[in-house]
Amino acid sequence: MVSRTAAALTAASPAIAEAHFRAEARPYHPRLRPDGYLNLGTAENRLVGDLLADHLARPGALTEENTRYAELHGSPVLRRRIAELLTRTGRSAVDPEDLVVVSGATAALDIIATILCDPGEAIVVPAPYYAAFDTDLGGRSGARVVPALLDESDDFALSARAVDRTVTELHRQGVTVRAVVLASPSNPLGQVHSAEQLRELTQVAAAHDLDLVGDELYSHSVFGPTPFTSLRNPAVGQARAGRTHTIWGFAKDFGLPGFKTGVLHVTDPRVRAAARALSYFAPVSTGTQSFLADLLDDPEWTAGFLAENRRRLAASYAATAGALAREGIPHIPAEAGCSLWLDLRDRLPEPTYDGERELWRTILEQARVSIIPGEIFHPNAPGWFRLCHTQDQETVAEAVARLGRLLGSRPRP
Amino acid sequence: MVSRTAAALTAASPAIAEAHFRAEARPYHPRLRPDGYLNLGTAENRLVGDLLADHLARPGALTEENTRYAELHGSPVLRRRIAELLTRTGRSAVDPEDLVVVSGATAALDIIATILCDPGEAIVVPAPYYAAFDTDLGGRSGARVVPALLDESDDFALSARAVDRTVTELHRQGVTVRAVVLASPSNPLGQVHSAEQLRELTQVAAAHDLDLVGDELYSHSVFGPTPFTSLRNPAVGQARAGRTHTIWGFAKDFGLPGFKTGVLHVTDPRVRAAARALSYFAPVSTGTQSFLADLLDDPEWTAGFLAENRRRLAASYAATAGALAREGIPHIPAEAGCSLWLDLRDRLPEPTYDGERELWRTILEQARVSIIPGEIFHPNAPGWFRLCHTQDQETVAEAVARLGRLLGSRPRP
Repeated sequence: MVSRTAAALTAASPAIAEAHFRAEARPYHPRLRPDGYLNLGTAENRLVGDLLADHLARPGALTEENTRYAELHGSPVLRRRIAELLTRTGRSAVDPEDLVVVSGATAALDIIATILCDPGEAIVVPAPYYAAFDTDLGGRSGARVVPALLDESDDFALSARAVDRTVTELHRQGVTVRAVVLASPSNPLGQVHSAEQLRELTQVAAAHDLDLVGDELYSHSVFGPTPFTSLRNPAVGQARAGRTHTIWGFAKDFGLPGFKTGVLHVTDPRVRAAARALSYFAPVSTGTQSFLADLLDDPEWTAGFLAENRRRLAASYAATAGALAREGIPHIPAEAGCSLWLDLRDRLPEPTYDGERELWRTILEQARVSIIPGEIFHPNAPGWFRLCHTQDQETVAEAVARLGRLLGSRPRP
Repeated sequence: MVSRTAAALTAASPAIAEAHFRAEARPYHPRLRPDGYLNLGTAENRLVGDLLADHLARPGALTEENTRYAELHGSPVLRRRIAELLTRTGRSAVDPEDLVVVSGATAALDIIATILCDPGEAIVVPAPYYAAFDTDLGGRSGARVVPALLDESDDFALSARAVDRTVTELHRQGVTVRAVVLASPSNPLGQVHSAEQLRELTQVAAAHDLDLVGDELYSHSVFGPTPFTSLRNPAVGQARAGRTHTIWGFAKDFGLPGFKTGVLHVTDPRVRAAARALSYFAPVSTGTQSFLADLLDDPEWTAGFLAENRRRLAASYAATAGALAREGIPHIPAEAGCSLWLDLRDRLPEPTYDGERELWRTILEQARVSIIPGEIFHPNAPGWFRLCHTQDQETVAEAVARLGRLLGSRPRP
């Protein structure tokens, strides 16, 4: 027999992970396996591998010192360099003492949710939202993750009013709400929230005495016209010192998801002490910390890398959006990140989540394309899918062509 | 305001960590800082750095593949090599599919406790025990960690009867007991449990329908005459398939505590599925996994390394025990690990834990030696201290000499 927490976590089988490993086991190759799977399900940024190749091929030498016990919330040098990076790019001074380095953004989300919520207390998240938030925020902490549905007619743009309505309704039901969490830029939609939108959201959080958590994992992956604004930026909510927490990591902006390194920025002394205590359960190897500190040791190289990353993301998005348009497959415009949000609502065999799962399976088995069905992102209706385009453009083109062939036989809008 | 879990974890200030960083900030050096601190508080095996220097100086090249999402419970190659090692040294076949790699033994203990216990349920641990077990096993899971006090007159040898008595008493109080956890070899005492002792313990666990968890972190650090017997060894408890779980890692036997890599061995399908789900919150960087897989790629080198480690541990222990004897400071004989258990009961200013803390502070401030006061290990009485000897022998000799000078002015037994 296993505990309630263990049973719930085991039952919440990660559909994304399953599709990922299935697709990765028999991957497409133009010559060697032309009928192989095309994995457009995983939000990996595979556009920057060549820019990292030198660092990866010759990892810096480690010393005996690197192998010893170290501060579990992150080595001073790595925290200093991350603080310098976030200070430059977030336009707001970050103190390395406010950073807690942990083994991935998932761990960071789990830790902040565990700090803010007792079991049963609620976290409100504007929806559609990154599917893993349910497990990341609620799986260990016991917090209830409640979507605040955004308006499809406004392309699901962030709306403080939607959050306000959801919090008010939860209060009416007697639920204790502790926090609002949002991905900024958003995932799966790849939208960049404006300073004005974030300011309004901060005001709603303040009005309800809630903490606000920004998952800013894609903050250096903005390629559209709206500039990224960090929730740390004083223009967004100066009066909320200590109640706003942000998360960043190396998975997306640096294309290093395997390195499992995330960082929490927390300024409230009690929250910081708790985050350090919880980092004890999810520390990062000193070897990896040393590698990442080396990677950030030259601000000019970092700036050039991030600029080139943005150029490649823009080109990848433009090519993918163009190919989708030619196949008559609509999507919501994106300005950031690895993914876009396909609208296949009128391709469903029936307008239900059963119908969505059927279409997903058809796409996976007949077109051999892995994209993620929208249901797990808590959208407004069945028929949305997340497609990740940040990889070899030939692979993406082949996948969109397969989608076109498969879905072209169905009615077009 | 922070959650109950966060508040409790923050309050449980890690005394060991505090003393560690204080002592490390102004370390002793025979010429440069002869009045510096001598840190004999941290269970680091610093005897093998030169054997690892080549691997550390030239970490293997990483590929783009190494940076990608991977199975979060450990790469297939690392799990295979750990399984081969544990199969050879534990004399019982380990299936790589039963291994779950996580970011340190602390994470492994937290995960198994979270799987086995709902909040408030009890885990019984033979005492004295590794002080961090309280936080590792109970801090996040909410499990109650209850000591089963061993008999000092028998040098605190593992006793199934003591465990039986404690479980029976808890049942009488209406407490649900889920598991027995023990460090094997033990920490802080460095004792090696015999096959017979482990068999009896397994029988007690079976009689009470409890899971049994062996923290075998020091299993390759045995230097005394009693051979190590793994709880996986069928001779110990064949009939208990699926109810015995073991933990191992690279911190002690390979002297790589900074690399934060532990591994759970679990054979029950539900427990394994839950452990994999929980590993999602505490994964190890693919970079570090790649380094460790390289380290284990040559079984002959590994066997030689471990044999040399045992020789050096034996020499370090013998020298330290001899020096302590010359100063008239008694300890319980050890056969494994990094530490030994000093008996300073008749040096206390008063026979209380206040007296123990006073003596600890005197030792830290006057002798500038960091050793860990016994209270947090749940012993039978105040006055026990843990001393870690696995470092430069000159440092240890200086520390023992300082202890002798300080404690020599007090009554001898």
